Amino acid sequence: MGSKSKILIIGATGYIGRQVAKASLALSHPTFLLVRDSPASSKPEKAQLLDSFKASGANILKGSLEDHASLVEAVKKVDVVISTVGGEQIANQFNIIKAIKEVGTIKRFLPSEFGNDVDNVHAVEPAKSVFELKAQVRRAIEAESIPYTYVSSNCFAGYFLPSFAQAGLTSPPRDKVVILGDGNAKAVYVKEEDIGTFAIKAADDPRTLNKTLYLRLPANTLSFNELVALWEKKIGKTLEKVYVPEEHVVKLIAETPFPANIVIAIGHSIFVKGDQTNFDIGPDGVEGSLLYPDVKYTTVDEYLSAFV
Amino acid sequence: MGSKSKILIIGATGYIGRQVAKASLALSHPTFLLVRDSPASSKPEKAQLLDSFKASGANILKGSLEDHASLVEAVKKVDVVISTVGGEQIANQFNIIKAIKEVGTIKRFLPSEFGNDVDNVHAVEPAKSVFELKAQVRRAIEAESIPYTYVSSNCFAGYFLPSFAQAGLTSPPRDKVVILGDGNAKAVYVKEEDIGTFAIKAADDPRTLNKTLYLRLPANTLSFNELVALWEKKIGKTLEKVYVPEEHVVKLIAETPFPANIVIAIGHSIFVKGDQTNFDIGPDGVEGSLLYPDVKYTTVDEYLSAFV
Repeated sequence: MGSKSKILIIGATGYIGRQVAKASLALSHPTFLLVRDSPASSKPEKAQLLDSFKASGANILKGSLEDHASLVEAVKKVDVVISTVGGEQIANQFNIIKAIKEVGTIKRFLPSEFGNDVDNVHAVEPAKSVFELKAQVRRAIEAESIPYTYVSSNCFAGYFLPSFAQAGLTSPPRDKVVILGDGNAKAVYVKEEDIGTFAIKAADDPRTLNKTLYLRLPANTLSFNELVALWEKKIGKTLEKVYVPEEHVVKLIAETPFPANIVIAIGHSIFVKGDQTNFDIGPDGVEGSLLYPDVKYTTVDEYLSAFV
Repeated sequence: MGSKSKILIIGATGYIGRQVAKASLALSHPTFLLVRDSPASSKPEKAQLLDSFKASGANILKGSLEDHASLVEAVKKVDVVISTVGGEQIANQFNIIKAIKEVGTIKRFLPSEFGNDVDNVHAVEPAKSVFELKAQVRRAIEAESIPYTYVSSNCFAGYFLPSFAQAGLTSPPRDKVVILGDGNAKAVYVKEEDIGTFAIKAADDPRTLNKTLYLRLPANTLSFNELVALWEKKIGKTLEKVYVPEEHVVKLIAETPFPANIVIAIGHSIFVKGDQTNFDIGPDGVEGSLLYPDVKYTTVDEYLSAFV
């Protein structure tokens, strides 16, 4: 264990945090989880999850982003800090930056990203503000000269593929599919478990120091039209396609209240603007499948087969 | 015009802001709208909306919450400030509080609320954090002794009624309806236009000074079961009802990523916990329909008739 970086995960019971924690434990990193001291009875699912992490060797530390002393104590114990706090808690990460700066020994910080590259988006409000806040966190990290890696993992497969981004569906559509824009913009779908693995691989890799790790897995980079065609081939049926032009998408966003408007506005950025693939990876970026060819990630093709 | 309070609206092109602006103009208040200086071509719908407000007599002021000087200049021109910024911009309202404090002449501030009473919720994350941030804004207003009114307007009729909170629907369901919890918790549905009218009526009413204005319109306070029964009667058909027990709702929230998880978590607060009606209005609250019996609000019954 001595040569493996010690990793602190903040937000380990969350949607992506649980996958990052699993990967950290699976890859034998000494793993520390910062957990709020809350009555377990009110959150049986989270308590169960923490018990399973504990059984796998995780060290549970009581504390929170609002309790500076607890945060500093936790940061002192590790080499790497990974934040996976939810989208509604992005601004609270300024507290993590402060603690990391104070401790001064952290070799790498991965802020909560795990989506579009927020420095390369063409989003409308309210997604614009959501992305800008993540960009502000990046700027604060850079201003403090904290070593970082930003993980731009693009679409969560487990959220987008079972429903094809069609609200209310729990399996891909079999009759009609609604497509934002012309369906030609390419997006990237990555299974949450694989996101966890790539993030942990990158967390102490010198090649990802002060860079963005992009997951542009070749087999999983598809336009919406290609995604629908793949599904049609699997089920041997042609779907009715309803294309929503950009101006209608923008109008729908304006006429939908918070927070449902954010869901649509993020869809606009991904599926209409193509913000996951409409730029080249520059010198400050590295691509995950090129860096870690040994990671056998789940393909969209395999993922969809489970729903046939 | 001399006796009417001058009102500044921040966020006037937003979902609820446009209704507040319309009501302010309709009720003959000198109305000022703080608007970001953005290329109109990229937002044709918003530009159109601003044109119509201008035609009705609104004064458009260029500025933003991030430009302190512009904010102070705008605040200086009015008696009342109403913020209707979106849910992703709640924290930016600390800038408004600072400007109001600096100017020192504002007679009433209505922060962006327009939902559940955030001091009376039993929400789980991520809705918990969203509500807590609004509560922090309240505490900051009170700490600075700024005269305020909080408008707890409960459910937006135009968002909840056309879909019955069923994701993806654009008219109420005719076969099957999904009900969170047991369907017995009562919620309140208020048409957005009526929210605007009530907010403007309250904005300079001495009876709402430093109080919360609750909209608990008697005809519009219904349990989900009552709502479904009303609809069934209108269409002469019985729907299949799928009840989702609370533990399943909580699990679904944990297994859904941001921002869709907020949508479900707010639904949990409203429909499972009954947070719009599970407490009595105390001495710090007043009820809208009692205070303004002259406002002929749209009833749920009338609203649903449009979809039959």
